[in-house]
Amino acid sequence: MRGLWIEDGRASLRADLPEPEPGPGEAMVRVALAGVCGTDLAILAGYAGFRGVPGHEFVGVVEHSAEPSWQGRRVVASINVGCGTCEECARGVREHCARRQVIGVRGRSGAFAERLAVPEANLLAVPEGLADEAAVFAEPLAAALRVPRQVPVRTGTRALVVGDGRLGQLVARVLRAHGAELLVAGHHERKCARLREAGIDARVRPELEPGGFELVVEATGRAEGFAVARAAVRPRGTLVLKTSHGAPLPVDLAALMVDEVSLVGSRCGPLDAALAWLESGRIDPRPLVDAVVSLTPDAFDAAARPGALKVLIRL
Amino acid sequence: MRGLWIEDGRASLRADLPEPEPGPGEAMVRVALAGVCGTDLAILAGYAGFRGVPGHEFVGVVEHSAEPSWQGRRVVASINVGCGTCEECARGVREHCARRQVIGVRGRSGAFAERLAVPEANLLAVPEGLADEAAVFAEPLAAALRVPRQVPVRTGTRALVVGDGRLGQLVARVLRAHGAELLVAGHHERKCARLREAGIDARVRPELEPGGFELVVEATGRAEGFAVARAAVRPRGTLVLKTSHGAPLPVDLAALMVDEVSLVGSRCGPLDAALAWLESGRIDPRPLVDAVVSLTPDAFDAAARPGALKVLIRL
Repeated sequence: MRGLWIEDGRASLRADLPEPEPGPGEAMVRVALAGVCGTDLAILAGYAGFRGVPGHEFVGVVEHSAEPSWQGRRVVASINVGCGTCEECARGVREHCARRQVIGVRGRSGAFAERLAVPEANLLAVPEGLADEAAVFAEPLAAALRVPRQVPVRTGTRALVVGDGRLGQLVARVLRAHGAELLVAGHHERKCARLREAGIDARVRPELEPGGFELVVEATGRAEGFAVARAAVRPRGTLVLKTSHGAPLPVDLAALMVDEVSLVGSRCGPLDAALAWLESGRIDPRPLVDAVVSLTPDAFDAAARPGALKVLIRL
Repeated sequence: MRGLWIEDGRASLRADLPEPEPGPGEAMVRVALAGVCGTDLAILAGYAGFRGVPGHEFVGVVEHSAEPSWQGRRVVASINVGCGTCEECARGVREHCARRQVIGVRGRSGAFAERLAVPEANLLAVPEGLADEAAVFAEPLAAALRVPRQVPVRTGTRALVVGDGRLGQLVARVLRAHGAELLVAGHHERKCARLREAGIDARVRPELEPGGFELVVEATGRAEGFAVARAAVRPRGTLVLKTSHGAPLPVDLAALMVDEVSLVGSRCGPLDAALAWLESGRIDPRPLVDAVVSLTPDAFDAAARPGALKVLIRL
């Protein structure tokens, strides 16, 4: 089988990968379209010590499965595979199972290959009218939709998204759809323009009123982004950490205490809701697609280019 | 007027302090009993760059006031004095007014003196049956009561308080009264014993299950305490920062994101509720009193002694 392989900080196209071997309750999914995400670039740079086939944003077709009704269906998948026996799994929170695998991220092969094995419990059928190019955003859109599940976002909520990248773009669209009075502090004029086309106020490194926002979402993964975000949160406000930061950062805990600010970590979200938003057209992510490439390590280079948004891999 | 004066990291008893001059809408309060808090010790060590009379936990009697009904009444006071004109003040959140004064902490003389000026809007009358020795805990108990106002605490909530000091003691009692399944990770056998006498499981440096607690309250103000607290929060759990930390600490933001942990800063709380809890006897803080001393800088030494709990100053 052909697939992209990451090892020792390098990605290569390999044609000799073994076929996936679906375990009990798992389906074999043929990948149709996959998206490159910031986490994939972080993984390439060494994050999570991953070695293997990355890729966790994808649309595919079920080739075979234990439960016959899945066969031939177009699917997306939630990416966390829990152990099934621990307390978190018993509560249905498999994304926080301590022994979890994460498709293409942790202990499990991902979607930058012709096929992958996915537990049927993780599959969601893609509605018929929904194009692959939109459905492939289900996973990152779900992550964006996680924010209003954790923090109240209402009409008029003064919100700031720091970061105009792939995830920032989706978070901004979600917050705006919830009625937030929104500003995006961006880094690239081109990306900010994409946001403005969606009716969102977005500016490159805008001057920000200190403490001017009750909700701030950090979507840069950079120390400078965190500093901008922290300075912009009003007292009793919330700073959502939506992206991976590398090394630990110094945080003034006394100031958090005095200002009663909350830092809220935010990761995976509701995939079913994401599909519903995409199907209804409430968010159309397709303007975020910069390029559709074939299965080649160049996909990583294209996604890493400054100013790049979503790069899709068509199999 | 006699009072304790802090300047350049030293406390002295001075007999030559000018009498307070209450401004419009302010009352003159004669201090009867005041409590020494960790913040006072931090202020003595240089926190907040305060110079003057500290002290923000007190019971007193109104000597004179613009509004005659206050005169002669026994009172406690909320400690934040807002500018009255900013957006936070307009929302009634004077504790987060950027230009606020804080009695005995920031820009305003405190209670370790014979008298102080207090805005009448900050005063609360002490119920008749409530002893000074209990009422003097109204301010720190209010701070402890702030926690369940920010984070849901229910019967069976698995909670950990890290720190067996003055504030940890009160937070623990509040969480227990809310039904939490509670453990206190303490540092001093004597302080842990005080908690056990109140029916609370408290141990010196207990072994803690990593990620075992949905709610953790950091009440040590120390880097080691924060590390213990962070390791003990379960995924999607909450770590409440209840005390001042000095220098910024390195925080692994990626881990907060992955674990979807919330850090919640927590400061001043509802003084009226605290008085009601004290009046009803729902919490009796008097076992926490280690010593009642006269107005002397020794009060700081007594409060700073390892293992010390509450030191009160009787005027």
